[in-house]
Amino acid sequence: MSQIIEQVSGQATGQAAGKLYGIGVGPGDPELLTVKALRRLQAAPVVAYPVSDGGKSLSRSIVAGYLRPKQIEVPLWYPFKLEQSSQPYYDQAAETLAEHLAAGRDVVVLCEGDPFFYGTFMYLFTRLSERFHTEVVPGVSSVMANAAMLGTPLTYRNDLFMVLPGTLSAELLQAKLALADAAVILKLGRNFAKVYAVLEQLNLLDRAKYIERATMPNQRILPIREVDPAAVPYFALISIPSQWQPE
Amino acid sequence: MSQIIEQVSGQATGQAAGKLYGIGVGPGDPELLTVKALRRLQAAPVVAYPVSDGGKSLSRSIVAGYLRPKQIEVPLWYPFKLEQSSQPYYDQAAETLAEHLAAGRDVVVLCEGDPFFYGTFMYLFTRLSERFHTEVVPGVSSVMANAAMLGTPLTYRNDLFMVLPGTLSAELLQAKLALADAAVILKLGRNFAKVYAVLEQLNLLDRAKYIERATMPNQRILPIREVDPAAVPYFALISIPSQWQPE
Repeated sequence: MSQIIEQVSGQATGQAAGKLYGIGVGPGDPELLTVKALRRLQAAPVVAYPVSDGGKSLSRSIVAGYLRPKQIEVPLWYPFKLEQSSQPYYDQAAETLAEHLAAGRDVVVLCEGDPFFYGTFMYLFTRLSERFHTEVVPGVSSVMANAAMLGTPLTYRNDLFMVLPGTLSAELLQAKLALADAAVILKLGRNFAKVYAVLEQLNLLDRAKYIERATMPNQRILPIREVDPAAVPYFALISIPSQWQPE
Repeated sequence: MSQIIEQVSGQATGQAAGKLYGIGVGPGDPELLTVKALRRLQAAPVVAYPVSDGGKSLSRSIVAGYLRPKQIEVPLWYPFKLEQSSQPYYDQAAETLAEHLAAGRDVVVLCEGDPFFYGTFMYLFTRLSERFHTEVVPGVSSVMANAAMLGTPLTYRNDLFMVLPGTLSAELLQAKLALADAAVILKLGRNFAKVYAVLEQLNLLDRAKYIERATMPNQRILPIREVDPAAVPYFALISIPSQWQPE
């Protein structure tokens, strides 16, 4: 093999630096990885992924069947529920990956859905993409995948479509949702009761559809009036499909 | 192989009816098909796809390298530019597919991006899904893929995200875009000059990014002030990424 000497900004490593890949692993069904994400995943010597407080990693569980025996796994313990700034944790995670990259090892970071759409990969991207060659592989977002699972087209023709995080205030949600032709509300969890009240105010309860863990084996679709607000997972969403009808 | 006799609503065919698959083929790069879309595509005896006035099919060109020699191809000549209702054309296309399905042949319909997101597959879905088993395989949308190509994260945390068709009036575009934290404007083509004027009004020209044919071999990224309004293709979009910065 040819020896490539590459200058990594600020440091001469004496060997080619590794490449960083942020790959979207899609909404949950392992078959909804793209061909490119699968290829990047299986070729990389290092695979990193966010881990929740409970020690579980959704993105790793999605790709578990694709991992190869000798890959180095790097769990990234993000502070999902802390009140203080999470930025020091991303500093630390970025340095862990930078060590692998500087040593010439390609690193794949697993990202649920799409890496640049409400993800955490951007915090690593902003810290590492100027120092190391970085590629982002887009993924299937739950924002679209829910429609396939619900069997309901989401947007037509000239529709204005919105994605709203359930973390917004009731006032903001109500004011903005009123302007959409179709919408998806993410990040439900403990925000469900507030969102439900907004939908009731806007007379949207008959149109709104509720789905948990779209495309995963434990996916659940419930009539929105039957949802227990105390038992709504983070990976639940409400879809408000377009009402457009062809003339 | 076991013989399955299946009752298709309204007609006893004496054989199992075929299944209908609407598969998202992603934004353009053939590797951005999902593993599932690829599997469904290669297993189906019949592959249908929309064809433009000029006789070209973007979705077919995306999957050209994956097609198998004995697959039956069904080009669907949609009336992309006609002024009259397009619904009779979808009636005809649906009947063509229904003949294959009734004869027991699975049919895959190729859909650029995601089938239920501003697509044309829904017109076939509404006509056929009650008569035949139908599955939708979600795909990577250009709405997210453009961000990967531009190297710019699109949305963070509590951002409100909008997708606006450039076909909307300048007044509507301006009123609604002003409320978004991040946005993508689709269906540019001849609407570019109007959209540009709206961005100027909203002081968004420094933030807006322009990309043609994201992830395709002839992808082009241009500073938005250098775009020739007379030469903007339909598959161009403007991305307005979030300005959110971690504290």
